[in-house]
Amino acid sequence: MGGLLDRIQATGDIKKMKEEELEPLCKEMRRFLLQNVCKTGGHLASNLGVVELTVALEYIFNLPEDKIVWDVGHQAYIHKILTGRKKDFSTLRQLDGLSGFPKPKESDADAFAAGHSSTSISAALGIAKARDLQGKNNNVIAVIGDGSMTGGLAYEALNNAGRDKTNFIVILNDNQMSIDNNVGAISKHLNSLRTSNRYRTLKENFKQFRDQVPVLGKATYLVLEKVRDSAKLLFLEGAVFEEFGFKYIGPVDGHNLEEMLEIFRNVKDAQEPILIHVKTTKGKGYLPAENNPGPFHGVGPFDMKTGNGLSKSEHPSWSAVFGKKMVELGEKNPKIVGITAAMCSGTGFEAFQAAFPDRFFDVAIAEQHGTTFAAGLASQGIIPVFAVYSSFLQRAYDQVIHDVCMENLHVVFAIDRAGIVGADGETHQGVFDLSYLTHIPNMTVLSPKNAWELEEMLEYAVNVCEGPVAIRYPRGTAEIDFAEHKQPICYGKAEVIQKGKGIAILAEGHMLQAVKQAAERLTQDGLDAPALVNMRFISPLDEELLLEITKDCNEIFTVEDNLRKGGFGSKVLEFYSDGGYRISVTNLAFPDKFIEQGSQSQLFARYGLDAEGIYRKIKGKIGESYGR
Amino acid sequence: MGGLLDRIQATGDIKKMKEEELEPLCKEMRRFLLQNVCKTGGHLASNLGVVELTVALEYIFNLPEDKIVWDVGHQAYIHKILTGRKKDFSTLRQLDGLSGFPKPKESDADAFAAGHSSTSISAALGIAKARDLQGKNNNVIAVIGDGSMTGGLAYEALNNAGRDKTNFIVILNDNQMSIDNNVGAISKHLNSLRTSNRYRTLKENFKQFRDQVPVLGKATYLVLEKVRDSAKLLFLEGAVFEEFGFKYIGPVDGHNLEEMLEIFRNVKDAQEPILIHVKTTKGKGYLPAENNPGPFHGVGPFDMKTGNGLSKSEHPSWSAVFGKKMVELGEKNPKIVGITAAMCSGTGFEAFQAAFPDRFFDVAIAEQHGTTFAAGLASQGIIPVFAVYSSFLQRAYDQVIHDVCMENLHVVFAIDRAGIVGADGETHQGVFDLSYLTHIPNMTVLSPKNAWELEEMLEYAVNVCEGPVAIRYPRGTAEIDFAEHKQPICYGKAEVIQKGKGIAILAEGHMLQAVKQAAERLTQDGLDAPALVNMRFISPLDEELLLEITKDCNEIFTVEDNLRKGGFGSKVLEFYSDGGYRISVTNLAFPDKFIEQGSQSQLFARYGLDAEGIYRKIKGKIGESYGR
Repeated sequence: MGGLLDRIQATGDIKKMKEEELEPLCKEMRRFLLQNVCKTGGHLASNLGVVELTVALEYIFNLPEDKIVWDVGHQAYIHKILTGRKKDFSTLRQLDGLSGFPKPKESDADAFAAGHSSTSISAALGIAKARDLQGKNNNVIAVIGDGSMTGGLAYEALNNAGRDKTNFIVILNDNQMSIDNNVGAISKHLNSLRTSNRYRTLKENFKQFRDQVPVLGKATYLVLEKVRDSAKLLFLEGAVFEEFGFKYIGPVDGHNLEEMLEIFRNVKDAQEPILIHVKTTKGKGYLPAENNPGPFHGVGPFDMKTGNGLSKSEHPSWSAVFGKKMVELGEKNPKIVGITAAMCSGTGFEAFQAAFPDRFFDVAIAEQHGTTFAAGLASQGIIPVFAVYSSFLQRAYDQVIHDVCMENLHVVFAIDRAGIVGADGETHQGVFDLSYLTHIPNMTVLSPKNAWELEEMLEYAVNVCEGPVAIRYPRGTAEIDFAEHKQPICYGKAEVIQKGKGIAILAEGHMLQAVKQAAERLTQDGLDAPALVNMRFISPLDEELLLEITKDCNEIFTVEDNLRKGGFGSKVLEFYSDGGYRISVTNLAFPDKFIEQGSQSQLFARYGLDAEGIYRKIKGKIGESYGR
Repeated sequence: MGGLLDRIQATGDIKKMKEEELEPLCKEMRRFLLQNVCKTGGHLASNLGVVELTVALEYIFNLPEDKIVWDVGHQAYIHKILTGRKKDFSTLRQLDGLSGFPKPKESDADAFAAGHSSTSISAALGIAKARDLQGKNNNVIAVIGDGSMTGGLAYEALNNAGRDKTNFIVILNDNQMSIDNNVGAISKHLNSLRTSNRYRTLKENFKQFRDQVPVLGKATYLVLEKVRDSAKLLFLEGAVFEEFGFKYIGPVDGHNLEEMLEIFRNVKDAQEPILIHVKTTKGKGYLPAENNPGPFHGVGPFDMKTGNGLSKSEHPSWSAVFGKKMVELGEKNPKIVGITAAMCSGTGFEAFQAAFPDRFFDVAIAEQHGTTFAAGLASQGIIPVFAVYSSFLQRAYDQVIHDVCMENLHVVFAIDRAGIVGADGETHQGVFDLSYLTHIPNMTVLSPKNAWELEEMLEYAVNVCEGPVAIRYPRGTAEIDFAEHKQPICYGKAEVIQKGKGIAILAEGHMLQAVKQAAERLTQDGLDAPALVNMRFISPLDEELLLEITKDCNEIFTVEDNLRKGGFGSKVLEFYSDGGYRISVTNLAFPDKFIEQGSQSQLFARYGLDAEGIYRKIKGKIGESYGR
């Protein structure tokens, strides 16, 4: 037990194995994966699905010379184990540990970083072009899931990829899921290919044929091409991909090592764009995940035997609060519809979908379309609520400007995973949205302090607002503090939590909790109780309050779960500067860098945005002022 | 002459005409269009190409109940003439005049606003869904060019559009061009359909057949469906669009009114998604434009007889300066490659393309892919220069963050049309880029004061920088002032144009010219000469200089060709605030709204950003300070 895996210590070790050892190696890897991920949490189901695929790829191709670009990247755990990172696996997704995504800084076997969907074909095409320009001859392979194929970026890349007769291999890892089930025409098309049994029956012929010709990479390949032209043996026609200039191979059983090894040997060093359609099963080899891949897409620590999660909060998540309120709003107002981009369960939208199937649209991984589609709906008086993760809405920045805000259309963006998200790290931190939304004209941006306020803001956004509104709320358990503060939502008005003297602290959304604790410590130190404000409206700001507060306070602090640059604090500076008010404002926010992985509380602490950090910064600043 | 056109005064007037009057009407419209656009300038060639298509559409469908969504929108002039805006046509694209794009605020016949590409199918799908939810039964039609079909957003929409058996018509206006010639697989696919003569020959059968059945919308349609199933008569198979769930009809001659009227009558009120492939000729009916549609895509005023432009500046444009320098840089450094998203001529990239065809990539209208493709190239040591209009790069915001900046890859963005662009108006104003680029970690943002500096910055960006760099420069003639100021470009350093006392004015890029003039007037008023700074680096800021300047100056002004929110001035505020420096900073920039059309100089004047406006604001501010 563990014997084969022990021999995998560095990139290329797998190539020293005998072919018959690969099957048992896959078994060991599955066990290793489960044993680790049940402790660290992570993207389990997708990695269980690509064990054989990864092993076959890295057995045939030469890493790091050959370049494999993993789309989305959360399915690269097996790849990481095979390229020298097994020993660090217990640190997966932990603070300063192994990333859950490919990272060139971690290993030269990681050709390109990813975390968002649908980038692999574009990036791999750039890598292939660079290779050709530099006169090299390595293989370049993009591995992309069928879910990622719904993103427009993948299509833009396909439209460019089929032009040249040069080595370029796309592995389409088809598990019929993104995070939820896939939707749309491409999915249907793949399904029709997937259920075709043409490859399977023809394969037998192919094997017979192959046994009669020299099995030598290129030679075999050339022969195969001839066969294909005469007998349509291996490359079946009729796939959309052929229209894009790719040779289409498939569907191939992604859990059949022998089949994949054979095909990869044959396409290696091919001088044309090839797409290999590989069928895999998400969660393969672990029954709880196979039977229920959705919840096992990304998991926290769990009990390996039962598959049950270990830690469950007694309070609902922000997403759950959103989802429940949406059902209530949908019942009262038939004009409300829901939109998700392949994140129905992640955003808490399932109950709404079940209650109003005709008023719910899963547009697949397609944030651009989700946004412009919403604009179309809104232009006719429908009220669309698009629930989307903060870092994924980045992809629809232009559509938010051009299609929604320019015409001042009433589209509601429910921005989930806003602020620090934790273990997913750099690619997923939702720390840009305040910076990219608050400079767009006509856009109202809201941030709730707790679960009650999220509900109130949703109701306000759909039933009162008339233009574009974004409500941002974080990942994790919804705050329930401040239950006594229930001032009704009023356009452009903040909520004063506590009046005070000298110091005013303006909090964005859930940061109010840490701010409150910091304020208590200041008071314990003998300072006057500072004024505490729950801003609610990040755009437009409550200008009246911002002026009012300068009467009693001469030191203003802003605290937000976003980048410092261009964020909430920055907008407060702009306001005072435009009005010619000279007042000391200090902005507490995340610094000008990509924020690494770690738990949310670790990262708030590291960047001085927990109660302790806020307290220290305010103390430091006051001391400084006094010292002058 | 003009007799028929005189009868077109309001939406629906065309429907009162006899069918035989439409052909001569088209002739009159072409003449009207030419006579006006040769004076106002505008998108000529694409509008000449859709005269018959628009006339046929609006003769058969009922506006405004039926909704036509024009993709990109610059080909909607004929539509505007047919919907009550003929009388305002001399104000086209002028300050406070008729927009060059569809605008719901202008007319209820404009179903959706546009200016950027590839949005129409998404928006129309939203409109169609809203119709179904509201139990209405109007037609919804998206008119999209083949160029726009290369944008990923259009694909995301197609992937969602074929799901329901409901009325949804896509007109694919195929003129084989976007602005330059089209590229990529989709273009090739369309070309193969386009050259197929199957429709043409089968049409004869269809006509015979149709004459035997009742010509009554739905009835005819149902019969046609039957025919299709048995004889594959009208709807040909084999098109990618059929895979997306559309019935494909075409190709149809877009200059044959009779043919189009017949088809539109038949598809009207159809209860399924239909795509009609219409072939048109860009510039149709005006030989200079037909022969040379590229330059006639968007034109300034020109001589109608010869087609020659009327006003030519003696100095080169910023784009031309960029293009010329790129050839020089490309000759010296073989690692440099060029990328454009269907804007080769617009960005001045033609000479580079001609000189280095293997090192130049036109990725079609696909800014997302252009960016991630560039990241792939850069990851292997190639130096890509992606020349792109400021407002179009908005579409790649996520790719800039996730694929380029997160890994700190050396991609150079040459951001053309940054700042106010003029007549194209709201959709094209490049006033967001400083706001959306300066908060992205690792991104260097540069702004040149004149042509010489653009060249220097380009050289610096490709040969000295190691991470992502953006150089933004405006539309129009490149500044040549400040020829005596040739301080070498040095990382993070501004260029002091003039030392001064009391007031310091920090200028972003070409705004230096107006700033200089304003400063001269201040000096004429007897004030101390203000310090003048050419910032050069908008990110990172020259912090040393920002501190140094506070020694002699107590009033700082920033001036930029960008939105006030989140822009250059805002970053200056952040710097002083973070350091705890209390100094009066006033930011001059465009206000928090979408900036309308007008000439660049008109808009700078209207928003107080010409020399006069800057002078007045500074005077006002100083007076105010003195008054305190």
